[in-house]
Amino acid sequence: MASQDELKKQVGYKAVDDYVKSGMVIGLGTGSTAYFAVERVGEKLKSGELKDIIAIPTSIRTKEQAESLGIPLTTLDTHSKLDVAIDGADSVDPALNLVKGGGGALFREKIVEMASTKFIVIVDESKLCSGLGPHFPLPVEVLPFCVEHTMRCLEGLPAMQGARAVLRRGSSENNKEDGTEIAVSDNQCYLVDMHFTEPIKDPVALAEQIIKTVGVVEHGLFTEMTTAVIIAGKEGISEKLA
Amino acid sequence: MASQDELKKQVGYKAVDDYVKSGMVIGLGTGSTAYFAVERVGEKLKSGELKDIIAIPTSIRTKEQAESLGIPLTTLDTHSKLDVAIDGADSVDPALNLVKGGGGALFREKIVEMASTKFIVIVDESKLCSGLGPHFPLPVEVLPFCVEHTMRCLEGLPAMQGARAVLRRGSSENNKEDGTEIAVSDNQCYLVDMHFTEPIKDPVALAEQIIKTVGVVEHGLFTEMTTAVIIAGKEGISEKLA
Repeated sequence: MASQDELKKQVGYKAVDDYVKSGMVIGLGTGSTAYFAVERVGEKLKSGELKDIIAIPTSIRTKEQAESLGIPLTTLDTHSKLDVAIDGADSVDPALNLVKGGGGALFREKIVEMASTKFIVIVDESKLCSGLGPHFPLPVEVLPFCVEHTMRCLEGLPAMQGARAVLRRGSSENNKEDGTEIAVSDNQCYLVDMHFTEPIKDPVALAEQIIKTVGVVEHGLFTEMTTAVIIAGKEGISEKLA
Repeated sequence: MASQDELKKQVGYKAVDDYVKSGMVIGLGTGSTAYFAVERVGEKLKSGELKDIIAIPTSIRTKEQAESLGIPLTTLDTHSKLDVAIDGADSVDPALNLVKGGGGALFREKIVEMASTKFIVIVDESKLCSGLGPHFPLPVEVLPFCVEHTMRCLEGLPAMQGARAVLRRGSSENNKEDGTEIAVSDNQCYLVDMHFTEPIKDPVALAEQIIKTVGVVEHGLFTEMTTAVIIAGKEGISEKLA
C-alpha cells in the first residue's frame, strides 16, 4: 500500500500532468500536497516537457520552493488572470465547496485562485466530508481592532449555527511562538477559527454573511470555485468534476 | 446668515439634544461636524443635564477630544451594542445611503455605527446629492498585497459603472507626508478612491460586490444604516427620517 506521502505525490503530479500546458500562467498552492505539484512543475520545466510557464505562488514558503526549482515567478499585479491554480484543502464537501486556511495562507490562496480560470484541488480521501464544519475548523482572517467584538458578531451570524470562535495563537507561519502569543497572518491580521458541532447547512449563505461582517478581511470557505478535485485513496486516484 | 461652522454646530448640538439620553452607550463620529456633537455631549455631562453616558470614539482624534472633555469612554470589545451613534458624511443620497471615509476613518466608523441601534447623520446641505458617486469619490480600504490587482478587480465590478480607481497618497491621518507616499489607514491598509462620472445606480448591489472582492477590507458605502439625517441649510435645520 502506498504511504500517505506517496499518495500526495500521485495527486500532485496528476494535477500538473492533466491541467498544466506550456505557455500557461499558473497558481501554486501551499501545503504538503501542493508541494508535490510544485515539484512536478519544476521537473517538467527542467526536462523541457513544459515551456513558457510563469507561476504565482500563494505563500512565501511556496515562493521559496519554486525559486529553488527555477520556476519563473510573477505576481497578480503583473498578471491578473491565471489559466489554472492547483492547491490542497482541509475539507471538501460533496458539492466541492472547501474549507482552507489551516496553515494561515488563506488570503493569498483565495486571491490567486479566484483569479484563475480553472482551480484544481488535490487531496487525500481523509479530507472528504459529508458536510463542512465539524471536520475542520473554519478560519476567518480579521482586523486586530476590536477582535472580541468581531468574534461575537461572527458567532451571532444566522448561518453560523452557534459555532464557537477561538482566536488562533502561536502556530502561524509568521509567528512561531509556542502558543501564548496571538497568531498573526501575512497581512498582519488575526485568525479566528470557528468550531462547528453540526455540518454547515448553507456554505454559500454563510460565506456571504461572514464577508459582510465588519472587521472580517477574508475567510476559509471556498464556495463555487472548484473546477475539479483529484483524490488519492486506498483504492487509487479518482477525480470529481464540478 | 450663519457661518458654515455655526451651521455645523447647530446640527451637531441638535443630534445630541434630540437623540442622546442619560444612561446610553453612544458612538462619537469623526470630522468637522461630528466635532460639535462631541462638544455638546461634554457640555451636557458637565452641566449634569446628561448622566451615565459611556462613549465609543471612531478615531484617535475623536478619542482625544472626548478625553479632553471628560467623556467616559469604552470600546466595542467591552460594549458590543450602542444605543445611538452620531457622525457626519461626505455624501447623502435621497434614500439616505451615504459615502463616508474621505478622512480615512471609515472602518472604525462603520464597525461602531453598524453596532448601533440608531445612526444619526449630521451634515450641511452641500453634502446632499441626487445620486452617490460623482459628488465625492468612494473610498475602499484594501490590503497592501497585490493592490494593483485589487484595483483592477474593483474597476471591473459590474455595478462599478467604469469608475476609475486611484490609490490615495499622503493625506491620511496616519501619514502626513506631502503626497508622494501611499496613504496608510489605522489598520495599516491602503485606501483606493473610486472616481465616478455617473451617479451610482444601485448602491446596495455595489456595496455587496465590493465587499466580496478579495483584498477589500471595508468600503465607504453606508447603505441601509441611517436612522435620520439632520441637515443644516441656509433656510435653517431640517431632518429626514429613513
